[in-house]
Amino acid sequence: MNSINKNDIKVFRTENSKLDQTDFENLAFGQVFSDHMLTCDFKDGIWQKPIIEPYGPISLMPSAKIFHYGQSIFEGMKAYKDKDGKVFLFRPMENVKRLNKSAKRLAIPELPEDFFMEGLKALLEVEKDWIPEKEGSSLYIRPFVFATGEGFHASPANQYKFIIALAPSGAYFAGKVKVLIEEKYSRSANGGVGYAKAGGNYAGQFYPTQLAKDKGYQQVIWTDDTSHEYIEEAGAMNVFVRIKDTLLTSPTSDRILDGVTRKSVLKIAEDEGIKTEVRKVKVSEIVEAAKNGDLKEMFGAGTAAVISPISGFGFRDEDFELPELENSYAMRIKKRIVDIQTNKAEDPFGWRVQV
Amino acid sequence: MNSINKNDIKVFRTENSKLDQTDFENLAFGQVFSDHMLTCDFKDGIWQKPIIEPYGPISLMPSAKIFHYGQSIFEGMKAYKDKDGKVFLFRPMENVKRLNKSAKRLAIPELPEDFFMEGLKALLEVEKDWIPEKEGSSLYIRPFVFATGEGFHASPANQYKFIIALAPSGAYFAGKVKVLIEEKYSRSANGGVGYAKAGGNYAGQFYPTQLAKDKGYQQVIWTDDTSHEYIEEAGAMNVFVRIKDTLLTSPTSDRILDGVTRKSVLKIAEDEGIKTEVRKVKVSEIVEAAKNGDLKEMFGAGTAAVISPISGFGFRDEDFELPELENSYAMRIKKRIVDIQTNKAEDPFGWRVQV
Repeated sequence: MNSINKNDIKVFRTENSKLDQTDFENLAFGQVFSDHMLTCDFKDGIWQKPIIEPYGPISLMPSAKIFHYGQSIFEGMKAYKDKDGKVFLFRPMENVKRLNKSAKRLAIPELPEDFFMEGLKALLEVEKDWIPEKEGSSLYIRPFVFATGEGFHASPANQYKFIIALAPSGAYFAGKVKVLIEEKYSRSANGGVGYAKAGGNYAGQFYPTQLAKDKGYQQVIWTDDTSHEYIEEAGAMNVFVRIKDTLLTSPTSDRILDGVTRKSVLKIAEDEGIKTEVRKVKVSEIVEAAKNGDLKEMFGAGTAAVISPISGFGFRDEDFELPELENSYAMRIKKRIVDIQTNKAEDPFGWRVQV
Repeated sequence: MNSINKNDIKVFRTENSKLDQTDFENLAFGQVFSDHMLTCDFKDGIWQKPIIEPYGPISLMPSAKIFHYGQSIFEGMKAYKDKDGKVFLFRPMENVKRLNKSAKRLAIPELPEDFFMEGLKALLEVEKDWIPEKEGSSLYIRPFVFATGEGFHASPANQYKFIIALAPSGAYFAGKVKVLIEEKYSRSANGGVGYAKAGGNYAGQFYPTQLAKDKGYQQVIWTDDTSHEYIEEAGAMNVFVRIKDTLLTSPTSDRILDGVTRKSVLKIAEDEGIKTEVRKVKVSEIVEAAKNGDLKEMFGAGTAAVISPISGFGFRDEDFELPELENSYAMRIKKRIVDIQTNKAEDPFGWRVQV
């Protein structure tokens, strides 16, 4: 059972659609969920047949390992509708492959790629009316896997559940994003799980992020846990820094997520003739550039936020504002990505996948 | 509502006790669960009144943040019965305080100490027949908290659940424990969450531990993620090394769990006139001592395993066996701890708490 076609997936339809009660004009991010979800259980050593069923509660024993040992991974994707109502995904196989990279590191059994892709296609057919048409909105797709097997022994579970749930969503950030470059707390260790989309990577960021919020910042830029001299990522996004006319970003590593948007930014920048450098970026270099006027822009890149221009950053009790540029790299690259995603422009890279 | 007495806690009793069907002579670790559990919800900004109810399934929406962002923490404790049937806990306030230290780091609202302690006492009264009397067995107590609040936004949940579940248990390790000193993978980062009992700290260890198991080891001894030159802990236990007649263990830090058994071992060693040193311990020092015969013993210390003598270790494709000692520190200290826990000896430290 390693191959499946979307038409083979059984659909159990809800009799109580929430579609009519949903306000598509005023969507927050990831707060409203569509009518159906794809579910798939791992038991007896294999992934069982996925099904589509009404979105609703899951029943778990208190000894399920998800509650105790953090065995959970996820992905973030989006579906877009063009003006003719055609539905598109953006580089979906990148997410399929990354989910399985995360699975391996978290000792979760890898999922047959078809179960994910064909399952998602089948789900999007059932839920196509949930894809927002308003500019800046999209259907956020959340595939995730967690341990359902039981026991108070710190070892991998023998049962898991894979779910794809859907949330029609507006923008991830409301308003400007100011970031704090963090030197005390860290996101991930050398040889750790930072490159995986593991649940535990996120919970660990909440407290330091709250401290940053209390000081007026929306996000933290993490630095390496050894020296705190180099920037890493922002937790929910990879980070780009433009010094003079060069766009810099940190190389991926076992501490940094290999972001799909990050990769796409680099490719488009190259295509636009923008000079890029993928190398370790020193905090001191950013601060110096901010002081002498060479720091032109900073932005985050991630599926949820797409491209988020950063309006300023804090470092060691100093605050730095970034200029507002007319024709920023961030806006140029964002437009090209969004136009490809929403079928408004040609797709020279073959990134768009019609469902 | 920050204070509660155990007699105020409502008890909803099961009508289907599993007590008669439980084989107390052949208990594994953490595989069988007692009839009742304590549950307590955080909502509307406060921890609600705890109740005792039948152990059974929990219902959660797929968007509950536990599935996505790893907001979960736990504790491990044990209850013991003496020959007269009196019930004891071992240093329980250490667990109460550590749960709240973990809570703070994971951005989970701290629990009123009474809810935990009075709740546990009430639960143990209801479940006292579940405490094994057989030597080497005990009632393993698992208090845990996880995020039930919903949303696909990487931020702390607004609702949580605290549960205490009980598992009558035998030994954690069956047979000898051989460990591998790990140099590639790491457990925790400087400035990370390694000192907290957070779910994510455990899932991250499973894959490297599996690789070690494939080579014939039961556990991994983690080293610092920066240099891999110093030993840290073993994931489910703190580590002690005896070189000549001195007992060494690593200092706690933001990467290492402040183990209750670890603390107790140090105190008893002092009481027994054993020389101890709490300092960074180099891997090279252990290897050299193993080669020249100065390495007398190694053992792990933790609630689940109590004291686990280590029979040998692997490092860089070399295997080192440890001698079998007649009167090892491990066995001397273990006997003193277990005798205090089970009311077989005096308790000069005031560690035992009768329920």
